[in-house]
Amino acid sequence: MRVKIALLEKGIEVQYKEEKDVFEDKNKSELLLNSNPIHKKVPVLIHNGKTICESLIILEYIDEVWKQEQQLFSADPYCRANARFWIDFFDKKITSCAKKLWASKGEEQGAAKEEFLEFLKVLENELGEKPYFGGDHFALLDIALIPITCRFYTYEKLCKFSVEEECPKLMEWVRRCNMRDSVSKTLPDPLKVFDFVLEVKKREENSDSEDDFEANCGFNNENVGEEEEANTVGQIAMEVIHNSVRGPSTSLLENRNARHKAL
Amino acid sequence: MRVKIALLEKGIEVQYKEEKDVFEDKNKSELLLNSNPIHKKVPVLIHNGKTICESLIILEYIDEVWKQEQQLFSADPYCRANARFWIDFFDKKITSCAKKLWASKGEEQGAAKEEFLEFLKVLENELGEKPYFGGDHFALLDIALIPITCRFYTYEKLCKFSVEEECPKLMEWVRRCNMRDSVSKTLPDPLKVFDFVLEVKKREENSDSEDDFEANCGFNNENVGEEEEANTVGQIAMEVIHNSVRGPSTSLLENRNARHKAL
Repeated sequence: MRVKIALLEKGIEVQYKEEKDVFEDKNKSELLLNSNPIHKKVPVLIHNGKTICESLIILEYIDEVWKQEQQLFSADPYCRANARFWIDFFDKKITSCAKKLWASKGEEQGAAKEEFLEFLKVLENELGEKPYFGGDHFALLDIALIPITCRFYTYEKLCKFSVEEECPKLMEWVRRCNMRDSVSKTLPDPLKVFDFVLEVKKREENSDSEDDFEANCGFNNENVGEEEEANTVGQIAMEVIHNSVRGPSTSLLENRNARHKAL
Repeated sequence: MRVKIALLEKGIEVQYKEEKDVFEDKNKSELLLNSNPIHKKVPVLIHNGKTICESLIILEYIDEVWKQEQQLFSADPYCRANARFWIDFFDKKITSCAKKLWASKGEEQGAAKEEFLEFLKVLENELGEKPYFGGDHFALLDIALIPITCRFYTYEKLCKFSVEEECPKLMEWVRRCNMRDSVSKTLPDPLKVFDFVLEVKKREENSDSEDDFEANCGFNNENVGEEEEANTVGQIAMEVIHNSVRGPSTSLLENRNARHKAL
């Protein structure tokens, strides 16, 4: 979702390609396996026949290549370091904590809820009185953080809390971001996310495997809510087809760079 | 160590401040706790009264602020994305695998050894015939990867393998890097690292806590081999005192920026 939002903000036209199954290697497309043989994960951006993997790395790449379009990253090195710090904080701390909201029960879930709310308050504190984490402009840190918010409703229902009550300013920011086309066109309906989780939970009732639960929910950071249909939990490989900076892009089928060939 | 090497490569003068104990919060300095209240971890770079945390973020900051000096990062967005990808790969995969080489025994240690060697071969493959991961120049990816190599001798002794035999080209790269002042002045003697580990292992023989073992070894990615003395496993907070780009730096004691004040 991060990459989709960034591309929409930049006005970059892409050809999306969905993965039908991003969990079972045997069901993954040849394109994905060849493009990202190390992690075998989406998202992958293919540009000029080269692949770029990992959402944050793709965001930085997009901002560096399409410099003429709205900049996602501040030009100030300290602001850039600060944005990177909070994205790293989110990826390391909040993502794993959010997983526990799904994968655990009872006391463990309660502890995860407390920790999760504490993390949200840290973020709310970082937001302060600014309209966006990026300051006056919707920027990289906003793009990195906003996707998780489509799961807030589900977290609240399953773990019995209210983000609105705990972090009202953070929710103001969520509503502000959702007024942007790039966000509203990308994030799925929170109610559909919730319905999807309930369905998966039913199927998982007889399973003791937390990993299976996580995987089938499609609720790790890279995949949550990417799909409207319950049976499709894949995300996207995508190729830039509008290429305003670096010459014509190549075909998806020609995506075989030296690094990936060699592995 | 990454930050020290980068500063030496750039020729930036800094005032180092050692942490005597980076594991017990109660023993950490006020400066560290105030500078990095989120993670309470070293390294921290203090520049113009602002703190920058997390080694990779600090490296990018250094390269962006001191642009006149030798650039650590390629100007090409794809090369930058590629470097970020492999650093991310190292931090996510190799670091945790290396921990298992210490913290596990028997079959689990054997599996970790196999996985570790597989990762090294992936890196060797990425190096290819280039003198450095950065191509013709010692660059960001080299800086990020080289610190772990001072532990190779210890890994080999404890887990019975030879990096030289398994990955000869990677070892050529290690020797090439060690000919640089920035690296040789920063990395500790591998034999001293090994002696230190043996001493810690003796102390830990009666402990079942892997976390304690890891912590007391000082062998997480941020701390390994930073110290020459067995009883000192801390790393560094540092302040830039030569400031070629952005005006005079402030005193260490004045390091209180808004973000950290607020948390």
